[in-house]
Amino acid sequence: MNKNKVLEGLISMNKIKAAVLGSTGYVGQELTRLLIQHPQVDIVFLGSKSYKEQSYSDIYANFSKNIELICYEDNVENIASKVDVVFIALPHGHASGKINKNILSKTKIIDLGADFRLNDEKIYENWYETKHNCPDLLKTAVYGLCELNRNEIRTSNLIANPGCYTTCSILTLAPLLKEDLIDENTIIIDAKSGVSGAGRSLNLGTHFCETNESIKAYKVASHRHTPEIEQELSKISGKEIKLSFTPHLIPMNRGIISTCYASLKENISYDDVKSAYEKHYGNEFFIRLMKKGVFPETRWVKGSNFVDIGFSIDERTRRIIAIGALDNLMKGAASQAVQNMNIMFEMDESTGINQIPAFPI
Amino acid sequence: MNKNKVLEGLISMNKIKAAVLGSTGYVGQELTRLLIQHPQVDIVFLGSKSYKEQSYSDIYANFSKNIELICYEDNVENIASKVDVVFIALPHGHASGKINKNILSKTKIIDLGADFRLNDEKIYENWYETKHNCPDLLKTAVYGLCELNRNEIRTSNLIANPGCYTTCSILTLAPLLKEDLIDENTIIIDAKSGVSGAGRSLNLGTHFCETNESIKAYKVASHRHTPEIEQELSKISGKEIKLSFTPHLIPMNRGIISTCYASLKENISYDDVKSAYEKHYGNEFFIRLMKKGVFPETRWVKGSNFVDIGFSIDERTRRIIAIGALDNLMKGAASQAVQNMNIMFEMDESTGINQIPAFPI
Amino acid sequence: MNKNKVLEGLISMNKIKAAVLGSTGYVGQELTRLLIQHPQVDIVFLGSKSYKEQSYSDIYANFSKNIELICYEDNVENIASKVDVVFIALPHGHASGKINKNILSKTKIIDLGADFRLNDEKIYENWYETKHNCPDLLKTAVYGLCELNRNEIRTSNLIANPGCYTTCSILTLAPLLKEDLIDENTIIIDAKSGVSGAGRSLNLGTHFCETNESIKAYKVASHRHTPEIEQELSKISGKEIKLSFTPHLIPMNRGIISTCYASLKENISYDDVKSAYEKHYGNEFFIRLMKKGVFPETRWVKGSNFVDIGFSIDERTRRIIAIGALDNLMKGAASQAVQNMNIMFEMDESTGINQIPAFPI
Amino acid sequence: MNKNKVLEGLISMNKIKAAVLGSTGYVGQELTRLLIQHPQVDIVFLGSKSYKEQSYSDIYANFSKNIELICYEDNVENIASKVDVVFIALPHGHASGKINKNILSKTKIIDLGADFRLNDEKIYENWYETKHNCPDLLKTAVYGLCELNRNEIRTSNLIANPGCYTTCSILTLAPLLKEDLIDENTIIIDAKSGVSGAGRSLNLGTHFCETNESIKAYKVASHRHTPEIEQELSKISGKEIKLSFTPHLIPMNRGIISTCYASLKENISYDDVKSAYEKHYGNEFFIRLMKKGVFPETRWVKGSNFVDIGFSIDERTRRIIAIGALDNLMKGAASQAVQNMNIMFEMDESTGINQIPAFPI
Repeated sequence: MNKNKVLEGLISMNKIKAAVLGSTGYVGQELTRLLIQHPQVDIVFLGSKSYKEQSYSDIYANFSKNIELICYEDNVENIASKVDVVFIALPHGHASGKINKNILSKTKIIDLGADFRLNDEKIYENWYETKHNCPDLLKTAVYGLCELNRNEIRTSNLIANPGCYTTCSILTLAPLLKEDLIDENTIIIDAKSGVSGAGRSLNLGTHFCETNESIKAYKVASHRHTPEIEQELSKISGKEIKLSFTPHLIPMNRGIISTCYASLKENISYDDVKSAYEKHYGNEFFIRLMKKGVFPETRWVKGSNFVDIGFSIDERTRRIIAIGALDNLMKGAASQAVQNMNIMFEMDESTGINQIPAFPI
Repeated sequence: MNKNKVLEGLISMNKIKAAVLGSTGYVGQELTRLLIQHPQVDIVFLGSKSYKEQSYSDIYANFSKNIELICYEDNVENIASKVDVVFIALPHGHASGKINKNILSKTKIIDLGADFRLNDEKIYENWYETKHNCPDLLKTAVYGLCELNRNEIRTSNLIANPGCYTTCSILTLAPLLKEDLIDENTIIIDAKSGVSGAGRSLNLGTHFCETNESIKAYKVASHRHTPEIEQELSKISGKEIKLSFTPHLIPMNRGIISTCYASLKENISYDDVKSAYEKHYGNEFFIRLMKKGVFPETRWVKGSNFVDIGFSIDERTRRIIAIGALDNLMKGAASQAVQNMNIMFEMDESTGINQIPAFPI
Repeated sequence: MNKNKVLEGLISMNKIKAAVLGSTGYVGQELTRLLIQHPQVDIVFLGSKSYKEQSYSDIYANFSKNIELICYEDNVENIASKVDVVFIALPHGHASGKINKNILSKTKIIDLGADFRLNDEKIYENWYETKHNCPDLLKTAVYGLCELNRNEIRTSNLIANPGCYTTCSILTLAPLLKEDLIDENTIIIDAKSGVSGAGRSLNLGTHFCETNESIKAYKVASHRHTPEIEQELSKISGKEIKLSFTPHLIPMNRGIISTCYASLKENISYDDVKSAYEKHYGNEFFIRLMKKGVFPETRWVKGSNFVDIGFSIDERTRRIIAIGALDNLMKGAASQAVQNMNIMFEMDESTGINQIPAFPI
Repeated sequence: MNKNKVLEGLISMNKIKAAVLGSTGYVGQELTRLLIQHPQVDIVFLGSKSYKEQSYSDIYANFSKNIELICYEDNVENIASKVDVVFIALPHGHASGKINKNILSKTKIIDLGADFRLNDEKIYENWYETKHNCPDLLKTAVYGLCELNRNEIRTSNLIANPGCYTTCSILTLAPLLKEDLIDENTIIIDAKSGVSGAGRSLNLGTHFCETNESIKAYKVASHRHTPEIEQELSKISGKEIKLSFTPHLIPMNRGIISTCYASLKENISYDDVKSAYEKHYGNEFFIRLMKKGVFPETRWVKGSNFVDIGFSIDERTRRIIAIGALDNLMKGAASQAVQNMNIMFEMDESTGINQIPAFPI
């Protein structure tokens, strides 16, 4: 097995040359799978600190017969001049320590971590309890929620790929705020995620027997996706939104649903809400609006870039319950990163990520 | 293998003679297990329509070597004069068609179904979309939520054993309303249940591959436990409460958590809430209050009559998030029915239901 | 939504026109997914008795936004003249009742059921306890285990697509018999399958709570895949093989492993076995041979057409333990059917079925 | 919360005083649960190195409201003079380093680890790849498989509690060898276990997403329970037995089945085998023999000390397939340790371990 292609000049012509840093986490690995199968991409570098100089398919045996690259520790300066796009799938604090304006002048960056998602350095430091490594780039970064920020993404070279809970919650609530249908002070998001969202690091909380056949809430009133959701929804509504967000851990590998509650404004009807969703999402391929009385289930989106959204109006309490579902490793991470790349490189937005969800899986 | 003991006069002296109708559903079967192991009870009749004249341990092989009864179709008039207590674990509409004042004069009834839980015949008929079979008994029935209604239960001969979601939600919220700590118009309950709550009847929705590795909300804004929760919380608060209740199906066998949201009244602090819970539950053996920052997980209550309750205050939104967890087949059904029996027959309330939860199971 | 394309002449030029009978079972549905995504195929008819005249994506919501066909009851005579290939994914007894020589003169048939797998009508009738509907076609049919019968498949118009356990077990054992490395009288296959192998029909045995968190053997010494394995291995070895086959049900959606035991012939070494596997499978894209000390796990093949095979030699007992793993709905059914079609229509064998397994899923 | 009772003289009169070393592993914790509920036992010491000086119910929240002990590092010399029995639930190599003849003169020892299971020091050192710490005690130890060695257990003060796979496999095969019904050179055991058997230590192999929805064989032809099974079956048969044993990991918390294969001796019939099982196990409370055509499932024994055994005869191959099932943390570890204690202290053998399995759980 040979060294990474980037170091050997074996890269193909015409295709986008991509590097993946943090390629051996669950998200990095899912992204790598999508990029291998992407018709317009060549992966030329797979970064990994934990598994450096190991064969990728020895680490993840699903890749056997599909890729023959070896993982290396990254040197971003060096890589930047040789690739068209660098995906960074590392824990928060890493991406901001690796990139700078010079690097951004040479290559495009899609960061799947949290470093560039929050516009306000103070809010970042408050929720992440650490200094930000390069606050000057915060203004440059575009929040890569494709359906909402497509135009800005197209011309950016630094994308902050959104979090999994975040993508699900914002897409579910956005039309309600855009059309001013709900009281923005009453938003509660009760979210549930499969275990892959917690990553591959060993932890008693994700040991099989401690997780299987049980459910719990965690990081109650303190999860770091909260300010991210609030920031984007505030932009949409034009008002400063504070909301409650509670994540739960579900004994399954993949999938997120966000069950969102809000008080409807006076006289808003089922049809008003339906029209709002259709107006904003009717032409979005990756958003599927459910029929009346049907609600999203994570099984129907697994392995795909789809987001399913359904809602009900509780006339007794005049609240809307709007529910979104997605695959946390796909639209919640890797496939949205590819969607961002597709937009940035002016390809059809669904290239390489138009898989139909498999079932039952 | 011989016929049921009641029909043969083989009943023991001094012990409580019990009959279980609907003994081959999940709840009936769990109840039967508890009663077999209860030191003060003799089961003398096991009713079942679907499995009539079959050996109980052929239907549920876990009972092999532990019970040698045969299931029969019930004749409540006949049974009533021979037993001290009849447990009815049948779908709604059945219990109310089987009992009457004459029967209640002969034996005590603990109904694990929904027929006697709602005080108002109209509300019953509205939510259950059927006429009530004996509305005159609604006034007689006591709502068997043991920690709240112990005194009434003691002297009653007709107990409406509460629903699973209901027990969990009411116990989690009751002290907050009793002590007037929350705005009763802002209550939202987002609940999650294991699949055993759906029973043993075949249904595509509970087929293994349709349920495993997925999560969904169901009966959004329309689940029949809603009016039951509202009724009891209204009694506690003295105000008419309308709330939002959304159940979700989780891919696991057992367990429920209710994540409850409400706006705190002005100036209410963490310590105020803590004091309220301690005041009402400090001496309750079956309610375990979590330390600050710790939240219930269903695995810690599985197979037991315990209810675990924890809470957090989100200062940013001034909401409380209070979370309760229980085993839906135990405190949510069968072991609470036994707890009711213990109270009615003036035994120690924990007799036969003080199992420590096993883990990991 | 319009009627099926075949009935309207909307079929595209140049692509293979395919019909799927039994399209709403788990296998039929997985096959439909693969065919939609196949670059050289147009699905023109989806058959279903249970869901006739319903929209396919209403039955399987994963297909929403991906297909707009309606299911109809099939009329094979009618369909045969309009399509290039008919896939039949129906329970045994159906395919043999639907096809005949006239139909085979008009279209190719790939039967995913059991009707044409056994060459001997008597053995079929013995194990399936029913008369065979068209024994005259048994000689015509080719057993569609692609890696073993590629040449015969190429020129056939009636393929018996092998069973899931069968594919896994035969591929694991074939090289050992071809190279005469084991005593053919000592073969034991202990196999384990996920629940999707049992299909979508409702059954207490596949109800979530009856299957989850448990394991059982079933159809011990009587499973119908036994004669199929014996027939093919007998052909390979040139001797009549009788073996023991025990299937087990595992609480997971997908995947099969076959753990195969046999006594090694004298003086056969690890390297002899390794050479045998490499000789027969070294050039097979869809068979991945594991390194020494590494054994297959179903997670690495999920969602793909790969078969992973590993083995160990127990010097103490002079037995080989050879283990194979595959995805029962893919290489064990749907993707192997597509592989057969690819061979029959002289396409690259991996067209449309070269997905990399996703993980964790 | 106060110190351990043993150090304070708070021990009760008349009850058996017990210490548990390694009390915070899964087995130690399950044992602790059983001992708390045992009517004749007082736990006076809970040992733990990893969690020393922590409250037990903070480590395992299921114990909240049920025990108020603190864990300490053990000093066996000190403990031995204060307790009647010491349970050691530590990894192999530990128990043999902690005990000696002096300690055995003061207290009884039940070791749940592997140190005293193998009679032959050489075999131990060969399979465990380490020196044995006190080979002189090997002759003293009694192999605590209760149904087979009850008499020796009664008078011993050093019990080697058998392994989980071992208990299941030996009990399933013993009557066949005792009655000389099978060819002892043809035994193959294909076993499957839930994940709790792997313990609580963090490991990528038992991380939720790496284990869930997959199955694998592990330690093929090299698992350390092999010599233990061979030793005991050799004693029973009077011949030296070498067999094949393959364990598999199943995505569920608890339960083991052993599927055992062997060639029947000539002319042995179903009824011969049935009689053998009835002869040896007909009076054993904890062994349940299945009816013809019914096979064990782990769900029916979960949480109990029962072993379920069923078998089939494959007339085509003249092999018997005998299947046993048990709960690996109960009869496979903790409840069998209690059963051993009950025998040693001349109590009814089922005291404290006669729980009916709960279902579905």
